Amino acid sequence: MDIAAILREVRESVGRSADRGAVANYIPELAGVDPGHFAMSVVLADGSQHSVGDAGVPFSIQSVSKVFALALALGRLGDRLWDRVGREPSGLAFNSILQLEHEKGIPRNPFINAGAIVVTDAVLATHAPREYLGELLGFIRTAAGDDDIHINQAVARSETETGHRNFALAHYLRAFGNLTNPPELTLGSYFHQCAVEMTCDQLARAGRFLMEAPGMPRLVSPDRVRRINALMLTCGHYDGSGEFAFRVGLPGKSGVGGGILTIAPGRAAIAVWSPGLNAQGNSKLGTEAVEMLARRAGWSVFG
Amino acid sequence: MDIAAILREVRESVGRSADRGAVANYIPELAGVDPGHFAMSVVLADGSQHSVGDAGVPFSIQSVSKVFALALALGRLGDRLWDRVGREPSGLAFNSILQLEHEKGIPRNPFINAGAIVVTDAVLATHAPREYLGELLGFIRTAAGDDDIHINQAVARSETETGHRNFALAHYLRAFGNLTNPPELTLGSYFHQCAVEMTCDQLARAGRFLMEAPGMPRLVSPDRVRRINALMLTCGHYDGSGEFAFRVGLPGKSGVGGGILTIAPGRAAIAVWSPGLNAQGNSKLGTEAVEMLARRAGWSVFG
Amino acid sequence: MDIAAILREVRESVGRSADRGAVANYIPELAGVDPGHFAMSVVLADGSQHSVGDAGVPFSIQSVSKVFALALALGRLGDRLWDRVGREPSGLAFNSILQLEHEKGIPRNPFINAGAIVVTDAVLATHAPREYLGELLGFIRTAAGDDDIHINQAVARSETETGHRNFALAHYLRAFGNLTNPPELTLGSYFHQCAVEMTCDQLARAGRFLMEAPGMPRLVSPDRVRRINALMLTCGHYDGSGEFAFRVGLPGKSGVGGGILTIAPGRAAIAVWSPGLNAQGNSKLGTEAVEMLARRAGWSVFG
Amino acid sequence: MDIAAILREVRESVGRSADRGAVANYIPELAGVDPGHFAMSVVLADGSQHSVGDAGVPFSIQSVSKVFALALALGRLGDRLWDRVGREPSGLAFNSILQLEHEKGIPRNPFINAGAIVVTDAVLATHAPREYLGELLGFIRTAAGDDDIHINQAVARSETETGHRNFALAHYLRAFGNLTNPPELTLGSYFHQCAVEMTCDQLARAGRFLMEAPGMPRLVSPDRVRRINALMLTCGHYDGSGEFAFRVGLPGKSGVGGGILTIAPGRAAIAVWSPGLNAQGNSKLGTEAVEMLARRAGWSVFG
Repeated sequence: MDIAAILREVRESVGRSADRGAVANYIPELAGVDPGHFAMSVVLADGSQHSVGDAGVPFSIQSVSKVFALALALGRLGDRLWDRVGREPSGLAFNSILQLEHEKGIPRNPFINAGAIVVTDAVLATHAPREYLGELLGFIRTAAGDDDIHINQAVARSETETGHRNFALAHYLRAFGNLTNPPELTLGSYFHQCAVEMTCDQLARAGRFLMEAPGMPRLVSPDRVRRINALMLTCGHYDGSGEFAFRVGLPGKSGVGGGILTIAPGRAAIAVWSPGLNAQGNSKLGTEAVEMLARRAGWSVFG
Repeated sequence: MDIAAILREVRESVGRSADRGAVANYIPELAGVDPGHFAMSVVLADGSQHSVGDAGVPFSIQSVSKVFALALALGRLGDRLWDRVGREPSGLAFNSILQLEHEKGIPRNPFINAGAIVVTDAVLATHAPREYLGELLGFIRTAAGDDDIHINQAVARSETETGHRNFALAHYLRAFGNLTNPPELTLGSYFHQCAVEMTCDQLARAGRFLMEAPGMPRLVSPDRVRRINALMLTCGHYDGSGEFAFRVGLPGKSGVGGGILTIAPGRAAIAVWSPGLNAQGNSKLGTEAVEMLARRAGWSVFG
Repeated sequence: MDIAAILREVRESVGRSADRGAVANYIPELAGVDPGHFAMSVVLADGSQHSVGDAGVPFSIQSVSKVFALALALGRLGDRLWDRVGREPSGLAFNSILQLEHEKGIPRNPFINAGAIVVTDAVLATHAPREYLGELLGFIRTAAGDDDIHINQAVARSETETGHRNFALAHYLRAFGNLTNPPELTLGSYFHQCAVEMTCDQLARAGRFLMEAPGMPRLVSPDRVRRINALMLTCGHYDGSGEFAFRVGLPGKSGVGGGILTIAPGRAAIAVWSPGLNAQGNSKLGTEAVEMLARRAGWSVFG
Repeated sequence: MDIAAILREVRESVGRSADRGAVANYIPELAGVDPGHFAMSVVLADGSQHSVGDAGVPFSIQSVSKVFALALALGRLGDRLWDRVGREPSGLAFNSILQLEHEKGIPRNPFINAGAIVVTDAVLATHAPREYLGELLGFIRTAAGDDDIHINQAVARSETETGHRNFALAHYLRAFGNLTNPPELTLGSYFHQCAVEMTCDQLARAGRFLMEAPGMPRLVSPDRVRRINALMLTCGHYDGSGEFAFRVGLPGKSGVGGGILTIAPGRAAIAVWSPGLNAQGNSKLGTEAVEMLARRAGWSVFG
């Protein structure tokens, strides 16, 4: 398999696309991103890395950070984290708050916002915010083998100012006793965690610990790797998770900044970035690119 | 790997379980099944088959039939089937009808009842009910390599008499124009399809076409196999699908009769039967047995 | 108060309205009605009757019939009817089925479709359909003091053919054990009851028993009259009930045929008919006409 | 009619009741209230006032304050207030947040929490919090003809500390652009407004402006009085509003402190207080007492 040729082909195909989706516009830092960016980077099981496009340009990983935060939280708290958050897809987007109501404040999974807020809150029970963010950044840097990964403070600040829905979720969780810190404190850390910036090259390398391949960084146990991958597959793309599994056939986690981290277990860690989003809030061309790559490379967990 | 030893171990472990779940009781034919039954059967990639327990006792496969019906319908109609049914997990059980309302009568996926009713209805556009059921039974028999597979007419009759929720769903679909036949006609076929009876040995063999392994029956294209497996993983256990993916890590489809068909792509087709159900309506000991088997055998699509 | 002058004024004002709403089009018999019709008829406490417009033209009273059916059912069954149906407004229209699910098959009130189906079903426990419809027609004729009131069989037939949502509701109720007859049987009577045709003059007279004024027909006890009026006020206009109470200030019940029966307790029974509907499915000009009449006449239950 | 005799009878009947409901316990100031309190006070159209029980003991009026806040806001803003809040009953309690989502942040009516928060927020567009609370207290004191009415600061503080659901609602409203002030600011005023304390005697007098009777304080126009009464009738008891209208037949507004203000238009203003609540969060014995009083006195808006 000539991965470099496949990547070139994907880039060309994506370049012909007239509809690139709509860039997230709820904060100026995201609204101002050039929708013309495209990058894809792949780390293979042999440790080699292959990229096309703007793979060295940093972008806001946003909800992709939830994968690292979950891995860190499971390491700190173990399986009792699951007392506070479920493992099921959430169905309709609009249900998030209704489901909190019905399910007594237990979010459906750690990759919807409510669930990710609980995960952050759980670690903050024993870590000060600064300490938590330091550990998270350390985890990501170790995973990527690269210390040049940072939090964009302007993004974190804008998220705080516009994050009314997240504040609503946090207060709601608190009303059910499933938030142990004051909403401002937990959300402060949560907004900073979402504001991590990485390049596609860095993100692909940071995904190696989920590949379950020899020679890759071992940051969590094999059993936990499989479970994180399972959650990425069933819940990693909000209400587009089923569609991503159907079309791509690999675990992946998207962010509203236009990035997607995808894992082909035993074979590859893949990062893609294209800022325009589809109706479900996932990178439009990024999804198409990963689908094309997976098909050409013959990567699917389903056969 | 000594699969026979693993199966014995699983049976012993399951035999020690005090809580076997509750047998479905909405029709007398299911309510009367002995909860003490247990069977597991595995077909490996080398074609060998291994079983424990009551693997030769027929049971009502119920919703497991939706996998075969979907494969058949895709063969007849191709991808335009997806105009009428989605590919997303449904979230909360209670949403099924609310979601139909919101989503204009398009069921979320082909494995919830509303979706399976649409799949059956779609094939009935060009097939008479008797013809459809003949083709479906033919498909299952070919897959299993066994002609001794039948529909239990008493079960089909009881389903018809008590299927008020399914009638409600069918009329609702009809109100949105997503049911082309009269509800009685489509549901007549649907209830018969759910009333197929198979043994665990037969069901495991019937699952071989989803294994994507050399020498197995090739009934649908490889691409379609992967997509059916993707749907089984994200939607195959109703509102317990995420949990099954998390714990077992394999695509599976359950039925209210206590059967589960599970696929380890490239490696095995697994059927299990234990009539008692858990809170999500999936076989309680069956789920535990598949989880144990998958762990011991090291089978997971996630690494 | 010169009621004739007020009625003329109302008709003129309504006649100037450019937007008459949209005529119900789900069955040909309603779709074909001329949207230009307008009629209003008022019976005062002194027994005099005053009309404008097409007050002698029969129209399909549709859901206005639920008032008579409720009065009849309460007479037959007494307060145990309330074991099967509630007395609360239903909130959002789309909730009707969700609420049935949450509230164990007990419809919120007797004026939403699910509730009216239960009311009809309850009387059918002791009456054959033909007998029930005979009694209902008798009740309406007695109330109106007019035997020339009939059921339009073509309308009843069309309702049966297109009533998929009502069939869905009935099967759903049955699934919860809150429908004792087969759905076809109960809905057969229900569709016939909705197909009663009356003129505005007849409908206003038929509403006299809810006026609580001396000399009016006494068909139910005073206490029950007040309670039926209360239900009309809180639930009589589906999800537009609050708005009707706010603007008109009188109990009323609308039908999709464009009729509204409104009661000014102690003062008047008012019938209005204009076939075009507003977004909530209530007569657009009919609502405006009753609002204008109530304001000019100074009729409001609220002061 | 001997109102004093009726009141004695009501008190005796209520005194025999074994089940007094459960006192609200979400803040210590309410949880500590003696459930044995009972008071009822009636102002008749002739201006006379009649009381039984602890009619001179102040209690927290809580949501009863929403009536005064609405009257004040309509006076300040006029009908453009209705651009931001609806006039329909809300249906199921759990819907409140779902409905905000579906209805683009427009609360269903001004008497559910979300709606009352919007009403307060609207006045704060032109008034500082201190100024607003001063005006509100002034309005209530004028209505009651009594300056000895105050805000309980301890209650306001406790509400602030435990009001997570209200904070969630406020942030949610803000996310939809239907909250113009910071949540803390609007809620600060809202919690203080709910913490107004009055005796039953004061509350009955404060309700006189809604009676539409000669000689009563005229604080808002007759048209507006009728509309406020309409809203109290359709929406004044949360998801128990239909039941209150059905049983009592008069407009009323309840508070979680156990108070209810009820209006018999043209005849009486009625205040009742019994701290124990029923399942819908309305005073249990208070509701029963008003029902009995209305029946004995023959007061009903429905005939």
